Amino acid sequence: MINQQFKAMLSGKSIIRELSEYATERGKEIGYENVFDYSLGNPSVPCTQSFTDSMLDLLQNSDPVSIHGYSPSLGIQSVRKSVADSLNRRFGTCYDAKHIFMTCGAAGAVAHAVRCVTQPGDEVLTFAPFFPEYTPYVNQTGAVLKVVPANTEDFQINFDAFEEMLTDKVAAVLINTPNNPSGIVYTSGTLTRLAGILARKQEEYGHDIFMISDEPYREIVFEGVDAPFVAQFYDNTLTCYSFSKSLSLPGERIGYIAVNPNATDADIIAVICGQISRGIGHNCPPSIIQLAVSKVIDDTSDLSVYETNMNLIYNKLVELGFTVVKPGGTFYIFPKALEDDANAFCMKAKQYDLILVPADNFGCPGYFRMAYCIDTEKVIRSLDVLEKFVKEQYGK
Amino acid sequence: MINQQFKAMLSGKSIIRELSEYATERGKEIGYENVFDYSLGNPSVPCTQSFTDSMLDLLQNSDPVSIHGYSPSLGIQSVRKSVADSLNRRFGTCYDAKHIFMTCGAAGAVAHAVRCVTQPGDEVLTFAPFFPEYTPYVNQTGAVLKVVPANTEDFQINFDAFEEMLTDKVAAVLINTPNNPSGIVYTSGTLTRLAGILARKQEEYGHDIFMISDEPYREIVFEGVDAPFVAQFYDNTLTCYSFSKSLSLPGERIGYIAVNPNATDADIIAVICGQISRGIGHNCPPSIIQLAVSKVIDDTSDLSVYETNMNLIYNKLVELGFTVVKPGGTFYIFPKALEDDANAFCMKAKQYDLILVPADNFGCPGYFRMAYCIDTEKVIRSLDVLEKFVKEQYGK
Repeated sequence: MINQQFKAMLSGKSIIRELSEYATERGKEIGYENVFDYSLGNPSVPCTQSFTDSMLDLLQNSDPVSIHGYSPSLGIQSVRKSVADSLNRRFGTCYDAKHIFMTCGAAGAVAHAVRCVTQPGDEVLTFAPFFPEYTPYVNQTGAVLKVVPANTEDFQINFDAFEEMLTDKVAAVLINTPNNPSGIVYTSGTLTRLAGILARKQEEYGHDIFMISDEPYREIVFEGVDAPFVAQFYDNTLTCYSFSKSLSLPGERIGYIAVNPNATDADIIAVICGQISRGIGHNCPPSIIQLAVSKVIDDTSDLSVYETNMNLIYNKLVELGFTVVKPGGTFYIFPKALEDDANAFCMKAKQYDLILVPADNFGCPGYFRMAYCIDTEKVIRSLDVLEKFVKEQYGK
Repeated sequence: MINQQFKAMLSGKSIIRELSEYATERGKEIGYENVFDYSLGNPSVPCTQSFTDSMLDLLQNSDPVSIHGYSPSLGIQSVRKSVADSLNRRFGTCYDAKHIFMTCGAAGAVAHAVRCVTQPGDEVLTFAPFFPEYTPYVNQTGAVLKVVPANTEDFQINFDAFEEMLTDKVAAVLINTPNNPSGIVYTSGTLTRLAGILARKQEEYGHDIFMISDEPYREIVFEGVDAPFVAQFYDNTLTCYSFSKSLSLPGERIGYIAVNPNATDADIIAVICGQISRGIGHNCPPSIIQLAVSKVIDDTSDLSVYETNMNLIYNKLVELGFTVVKPGGTFYIFPKALEDDANAFCMKAKQYDLILVPADNFGCPGYFRMAYCIDTEKVIRSLDVLEKFVKEQYGK
C-alpha cells in the first residue's frame, strides 16, 4: 500500500510552485516577458566560464573511468581537502578534509546534519521567516521543527521568544543567513548573543545543542554589509553550503557540510553522515561535478545584478509607502503587504501579472516575498506595474 | 548529541570496503598490478564516446542557465519521456513520462521505492544471496528487511521458504536480477511462478504486495541467457534502474524508477516519490547528467569484457573442482569456498594477493564473491595464482 504519510503531503502543494506554474502558463498566453514573475529563487546569471572550462578539461583530457568512477561516500578526498583549504584561506579557520562531507546541495546537507545531531522526538528550533522546506527536512527525520516567531522590526532574532522556546528538548538550532525570504544577514552582534545563549544552555542542560547554519546565499552579500562567518561564533556548528547560487549551478546539486573542528565528535561527524547516506540512497554528489567545482572553488558568477535589482525594488517600495527592511544579501526582499491578508494582496497583484508570494508558509503572515533573480530590464518594467497596482487597489 | 543509531553503525564496517582498502594499501607495497583485486564492483570499462560527446555538446552549445538550472523534483520532463520511450521501444511496454521518477542511481531508486510502498513496521522480503546494502536501504525507512534463504542449487528462488515467509505483514518483495553477488538471471519460469504467488497472496490478504525490482545489471547479460523484463510479469512492479553499469558512469549517480502503468496508484507513485525527496534532501539527479544520458539512452559501453572474464574464471574454477553456478550476467561469480568457513578461505587467499570476498554479509555463508570487472590480462595472470593457492592450501 502507498505510504499514507507521504500521500497526505500531496494535498499541501507549495504556493511558490503553484504561482510559478501559473506564471509559466500565463506566459504562454501573453508572452513570458510580460509576466513579472517574482516567484522562484532560481539564479538568473550563467555559471562562471571557469566552471565550464573545468568540465570541458575533465571530459577532454582525463581518463573517463576515473572521472566517472564512484566517489567515496564522504566525497572525493582531494575535493574535501580543497573545500577545507578554501574555507581556511577565506575565513582563517582550521578545517581539515576530514571535517568536510560532500552533499547533494544544501538540501542534502541540512537533511544529513539534522539526522546526525538529533534523536527521534528531539526539537529543532528555527527562526521565522524561514524557508518552508525546513518543515519536511526536519520532520521526516523524526525530529520536530519548532518556529521562533519573527522579529519583524529588522528580521534579526526575536531573542525573548527564542529563550522561552529553548528548552531541554532542543537538540539543534537551524539558522539561515543571508536569509531566505527576508534577505537579512545576521550581524556579529546577533551571532554573538545567539552563541552565548546556546553555550549557556548547553551547560545548564548538560548536553550539546548544535547550530546548523544553512548558507547557500553566503556569497550574495551587498556592499557594506557585515556578514561574518557563522561557525567562528560557536564551536558546535555544522555549516551547510551549496554552490547553487555562488556558481549558478542549482541543478547540479553540489554542496557540503563543514564540521567545526572544535565541535563535539568533530572527527566522526562526517563519517556518521556517510552512514546516514546508506539509508536514504543519496550516497554522494556526482563525481565529475565534485571534481569540476573543486578547481574553481573560490570563483563566483557575476552576482552584482542581484544588488542592482534589490536597490531598484527597495527604493520603489519605500516610495510607494511599503514597510520593508533593506536586504543585506540574497535575491529576496520581504515587504509587508498593504492589507492584513497577504494572500488577498498577492491575488490582486496577480491580476496585474505581478507574481508575488504570500509569506504564511514562511512563518510570517502579512508579508510577501519577491525573488528578484530576473533580468534588470524586466525589474524596471515591473516597477511601473507595481505602482499602478498599488495606486488602483490601495489608492496610494 | 550525535545520533546513537547511526553511531552504532560505525562498528559494522563493510567487509568489501575493508578488503578493497587492503588491496589498495598492498598495491603500494608490491605494485597494484600484482594484487588480484576481486573485491569491488566498480566498472572497469570507459563510458561511451557518445556520452562524452553529449556532455561536450551541452557545455559548448547550450545556455548555461538552462542546462545547469533546477530540475523539477521528479526529473526533467523530456528526460522522463525519453526513458519511457526507450523502455517501450525495447520491451513493448506502455510507460508514459508520468511513470518515470529520476533518481540518484539505483540506490536512490530503491530507497525511494521502499519508502513509497511501505508503512513503518511492514516487512520487505528479499532473497539470499543479496546485496548487503539492502539492509540499511530498507531498515532505515522504518520497514524491516527479512531474507529468504538461498536456493544454492541454481540461485533461482527457494520457493518453499519464500511461501512460508510471505505473511500478511509483507508489503513488498525486493529482487535483484541479474543478481549481485550470484551473477544469476531469473528465468521466465522463476518470474512467472513468483508473480503467480504474489498475485494470489495479494488477493488472499486484501492488500497490495509490490515487487521492487533492482536492475542495475540489466544490460550485462551473457550470450544465450533468457533475461526477461521483470515488470512484464507482475503489475505492481517498480523497476529500479541505474546507468552506472550500462554506460559506465557509477560516480554520476543517475538512474530511475519506472512504475508499471498497471500498478495500483500508478499515476501518483512518481509524485509521491517527489514528496519523499523533500524529506531526505535528495531532490533530483544533476540536470546536466540527466540531459546527457537522455541523448544516449539506448547506448551501452563495450560490456563484452565481462563475459570474456567470466568464462575464463568459470572454466578455471570448474577445473579446480569448485562448486559454482555459471553466471548469466553481471560481473560477479559466486563459488562455494573449499572449506566451510569462507572467511578463513578468503584470508588464506589474501596471502597470495588474491582478494576474494566472503559471503556471510550476502546471506550465504560458505560462499565467496569475485567481482571480475578488471582487465582480462590481470584475470589471466590471477588464474595461475588461484591454482597455486588451491593446490598448496587444499591439496587439489
